[in-house]
Amino acid sequence: MGRITTRRRITRMTLEGQSREREETMAAEEPLEIRLGARTFSITMRTPGDDFDLVAGFLTGEGVIWHPEHLPSLRYCAGEDENGMQTFNVVEAQLGEGAQVPDPSLDRHVYTTSACGICGTASIDAVAKTSRFALAAESGRIALDTLLGLPDVLREHQTLFSKTGGVHAAGLFSTSGDLLCLREDVGRHNAVDKVVGWALREGRLPLSETVLQVSGRASFELVQKAYLAGIPVLCAVSAPSSLAVELADKAGMTLAGFSRGSSVNVYTHPERITAAPGPNLP
Amino acid sequence: MGRITTRRRITRMTLEGQSREREETMAAEEPLEIRLGARTFSITMRTPGDDFDLVAGFLTGEGVIWHPEHLPSLRYCAGEDENGMQTFNVVEAQLGEGAQVPDPSLDRHVYTTSACGICGTASIDAVAKTSRFALAAESGRIALDTLLGLPDVLREHQTLFSKTGGVHAAGLFSTSGDLLCLREDVGRHNAVDKVVGWALREGRLPLSETVLQVSGRASFELVQKAYLAGIPVLCAVSAPSSLAVELADKAGMTLAGFSRGSSVNVYTHPERITAAPGPNLP
Repeated sequence: MGRITTRRRITRMTLEGQSREREETMAAEEPLEIRLGARTFSITMRTPGDDFDLVAGFLTGEGVIWHPEHLPSLRYCAGEDENGMQTFNVVEAQLGEGAQVPDPSLDRHVYTTSACGICGTASIDAVAKTSRFALAAESGRIALDTLLGLPDVLREHQTLFSKTGGVHAAGLFSTSGDLLCLREDVGRHNAVDKVVGWALREGRLPLSETVLQVSGRASFELVQKAYLAGIPVLCAVSAPSSLAVELADKAGMTLAGFSRGSSVNVYTHPERITAAPGPNLP
Repeated sequence: MGRITTRRRITRMTLEGQSREREETMAAEEPLEIRLGARTFSITMRTPGDDFDLVAGFLTGEGVIWHPEHLPSLRYCAGEDENGMQTFNVVEAQLGEGAQVPDPSLDRHVYTTSACGICGTASIDAVAKTSRFALAAESGRIALDTLLGLPDVLREHQTLFSKTGGVHAAGLFSTSGDLLCLREDVGRHNAVDKVVGWALREGRLPLSETVLQVSGRASFELVQKAYLAGIPVLCAVSAPSSLAVELADKAGMTLAGFSRGSSVNVYTHPERITAAPGPNLP
């Protein structure tokens, strides 16, 4: 499709008074409409590419599917722009037997829509009820030095970021530090959806012996998505939010943040991080 | 409410083998349910605080309101947690005469829900139709050195960021560089909503002679929000997305990014940025 990046002439202005035009590469961002059968389920702004993975991961994160059989068909719907060109911005999913078909009266915020008593605790309880996979305490053990090395591996493989400087990344690693799947997107949650969707379609769920490394912050939504994919360790380069920490604690997930080369903050369940050197290091 | 930050014991692990517990301050994140009368309109994950501004700004960004008279009443609904405590996580807005009451059958993604032909161009056209304020070419002129100084002012005033390192900020400035309003939130769009909502409730829309400086990236949604508030210049510390640039171009907005002290990239309408020294500098 060739729309992952776009090029554009911009004006670069400096304090020294120079002002000159130059070509700049930008991360593309377009809306993606996700349909369940004929019904619009959600619309997300995303970087085009890996759209089927994005849809599969999004549906996993909402608790709709958790096995490849739940998603027998994905196809681009016949969206056309004003010139009659296929937009590739509408994906229609057909759900298979066993999928948890969402109530049509609910929008995607199903997990937070309680009666007039919405609060963090209610959200956490709802997510906890939705997840199909328990996070076993003995799963996902990773050596500290392996964990600390993941942000560098992520950055090395971020081809879109190195071109544009404007995208988030999510990388799924084995507990020995091998990169299994990396995805980039203008939206941090989309990058995670693309990784989880790849794993679902590969039949790899639950992702019991993996670590998810993300480039930015760790929000409640990212912990939710990791939890519903069965990922026991989530590590962010930057800070987590308070509700992210609460959910990770309750889910039994190891949540780490501010992973900066030589140190990391571990907010919940530090017992999975071991001091022994990882297998991939000398 | 005292929930803008929370404190928690965490484990800090270093490569040198040190592992110790310490207290860490985190930005709070809780769901906010926005109601129009008795109906749930949207739910957003936000940092508590300035919730009425957030609701007012969100409704402005959706094209529902654009004048204080459109929003005669905002109140916390009687949400309670399991201990019977008010959660302050449900806000009910009453719309006044002249407000554009949204179709109950549409969720908040009203502007992207076209027939099976969704694409960036359709979204841009829909937003362009929704905005009540045109951005006049002669409005919002700002000197380059003033513009380049805004990120530093933003950072100086980011009290929540300095405590937690985990939040976005949006600052509304006059074209002479005076800070009018700054808001922080775990969600970049919430920070902008809080600033716009403050301005709406103060009767300041359209914000013709202002510049909006944001701490992170410039997404399509941020450009949309700025446009519907009548802000002629949006400047980001990091990159814009391609659709953000397209919308800014069409809206007549000056969109700048990678504002890094001595230089800035100007993606659209550079004519508002003048080389003459700003009034606040020696």
